[in-house]
Amino acid sequence: MFYEHAIELLDRRGVTIEAIADIVYDLQLKFHPQLTRRECVESVDTVLKKREVQHAIITGVALDELAEQKKLPYPLQQMLESDEPLYGIDEIVALSITNVYGTIGLTSFGYLDKNKNGIISQLNSNKGMVHAFLDDLVSGIAAAASARIAHEYPDFSRYEINGEKDSL
Amino acid sequence: MFYEHAIELLDRRGVTIEAIADIVYDLQLKFHPQLTRRECVESVDTVLKKREVQHAIITGVALDELAEQKKLPYPLQQMLESDEPLYGIDEIVALSITNVYGTIGLTSFGYLDKNKNGIISQLNSNKGMVHAFLDDLVSGIAAAASARIAHEYPDFSRYEINGEKDSL
Amino acid sequence: MFYEHAIELLDRRGVTIEAIADIVYDLQLKFHPQLTRRECVESVDTVLKKREVQHAIITGVALDELAEQKKLPYPLQQMLESDEPLYGIDEIVALSITNVYGTIGLTSFGYLDKNKNGIISQLNSNKGMVHAFLDDLVSGIAAAASARIAHEYPDFSRYEINGEKDSL
Amino acid sequence: MFYEHAIELLDRRGVTIEAIADIVYDLQLKFHPQLTRRECVESVDTVLKKREVQHAIITGVALDELAEQKKLPYPLQQMLESDEPLYGIDEIVALSITNVYGTIGLTSFGYLDKNKNGIISQLNSNKGMVHAFLDDLVSGIAAAASARIAHEYPDFSRYEINGEKDSL
Repeated sequence: MFYEHAIELLDRRGVTIEAIADIVYDLQLKFHPQLTRRECVESVDTVLKKREVQHAIITGVALDELAEQKKLPYPLQQMLESDEPLYGIDEIVALSITNVYGTIGLTSFGYLDKNKNGIISQLNSNKGMVHAFLDDLVSGIAAAASARIAHEYPDFSRYEINGEKDSL
Repeated sequence: MFYEHAIELLDRRGVTIEAIADIVYDLQLKFHPQLTRRECVESVDTVLKKREVQHAIITGVALDELAEQKKLPYPLQQMLESDEPLYGIDEIVALSITNVYGTIGLTSFGYLDKNKNGIISQLNSNKGMVHAFLDDLVSGIAAAASARIAHEYPDFSRYEINGEKDSL
Repeated sequence: MFYEHAIELLDRRGVTIEAIADIVYDLQLKFHPQLTRRECVESVDTVLKKREVQHAIITGVALDELAEQKKLPYPLQQMLESDEPLYGIDEIVALSITNVYGTIGLTSFGYLDKNKNGIISQLNSNKGMVHAFLDDLVSGIAAAASARIAHEYPDFSRYEINGEKDSL
Repeated sequence: MFYEHAIELLDRRGVTIEAIADIVYDLQLKFHPQLTRRECVESVDTVLKKREVQHAIITGVALDELAEQKKLPYPLQQMLESDEPLYGIDEIVALSITNVYGTIGLTSFGYLDKNKNGIISQLNSNKGMVHAFLDDLVSGIAAAASARIAHEYPDFSRYEINGEKDSL
């Protein structure tokens, strides 16, 4: 497993687990008022232990760094340098992260990717650096960690029959 | 093809092509200042001509209406009535719409599904009606129509070589 | 959680955990010769404990049964009765199952859905019954359980550095 | 658009449009006996005109070639060299191709990726070359071209009402 390597890569690119956890906290607090930052850190950490998430980070960060070093062939180099909005491959790679806790992460992913919450907006303002994949990776991780928290707090009262909770 | 049938179903559920086009217009205007409402209507219309989009609408609206008529078995009936946030199947069905113009629609889908722009927010306030699928279907159609518009306005200047446009 | 309910629904439709486990065993044995049928049963069982998998089963079986009872509106009724190959919604719902253990399940899903291994082929030969969703659901569950087994047997030797295993 | 560039990249990697069309022909002939090889070539060609397909090819071939040149960082270099079955990113990138003509391509994609039809099997036997992405890209293109052909030959007789074709 490349869990520690993935964390190291994110760190090298300026993204800490805590910064991702802050996004998750801001996103989920209104739905789960008892949520703590510590739970968000743990949720991000659990997402990073998934192999597919590590593979997405390893691939995306490699492409961003190769683009910074001008080592990608034309026109991929230009697409990543300009963060071409029609590129789409950065989003599909991040989707493999989001899916890790089910489809319900999709909505948060799109929302974060558009709103550029927290650390995500800072990534997009670093001139000279290429973060074509990184912002989508971070949105994907935060969305998956949020979906995981939502799954932890299900509301089963709606399935009660005759006032009694069903044996769910 | 069930193009007319799909439009009729949306209409019966309170959603016009124009209402979806308004969402697209609000979403895309800042990227393409020359965009007209007419182009947005045409884009939504083109999305509705795709067979997979029609199938998603036919399935989702049938499930919403069966839920209103209390004809679904337990616990599906309860999930749709309460628009269970952990359900996820409404989002995956809408994803098949969003994908029709590529992955770049993903971001808009999530954004719309969370922000509840325009007609989408009205759907969620209709008491007594079940719109578990409809709000996701509308977000999906608007996201696909937006992606289609983005594809119509590519910016190729970034791929110029030596000041000349490459023969793209 | 609707774990027991999902198993009951599959059982009612003629599909046991063991029948799905047999497909998994046939698919994975050549890659993992030490694999036992018991491990395959456990893997299918673990897949069925995931909420999104339960939701997909609940939705798909409800649609199949409503179609058998002729209770779906036109043209959805006809699409499911004829198992319309262009329908696509059965496959996208099953995709939400397959994704539960990452993208690597995709390949097995497509393979099973086309080859109709084991119980899947029997489903398609039952006249009078509608299994438009069920065959895709079973393919999806078997694919996810196979992906889970593949993840359990990683081969890390390829990442050795200087003859020593990296601290993975 | 990078249509010609994408064709050139495939050609450089040993894959012609005709070789992909042969896979499509073998896959679809039993469903559509009147199908010609020419139609299959045209269908592959139409798939290659889609921007997202071009982007997937550009990205996947770049990664394969960088791996051959030993220019990727650890452990991505090792993952691609060994075509790590748990990698998953090659499959998700190819999925963005398959989706271009809807979900119905999913089944063919998985089937081809496992069966290694035609040119796909030859790619996997070339020692010294890295085709971690290329085999999935080719499976994805062939699956999308097959889905496109299936959409061209719909069977509407199942939706006839009272012996008359509905105005579909």
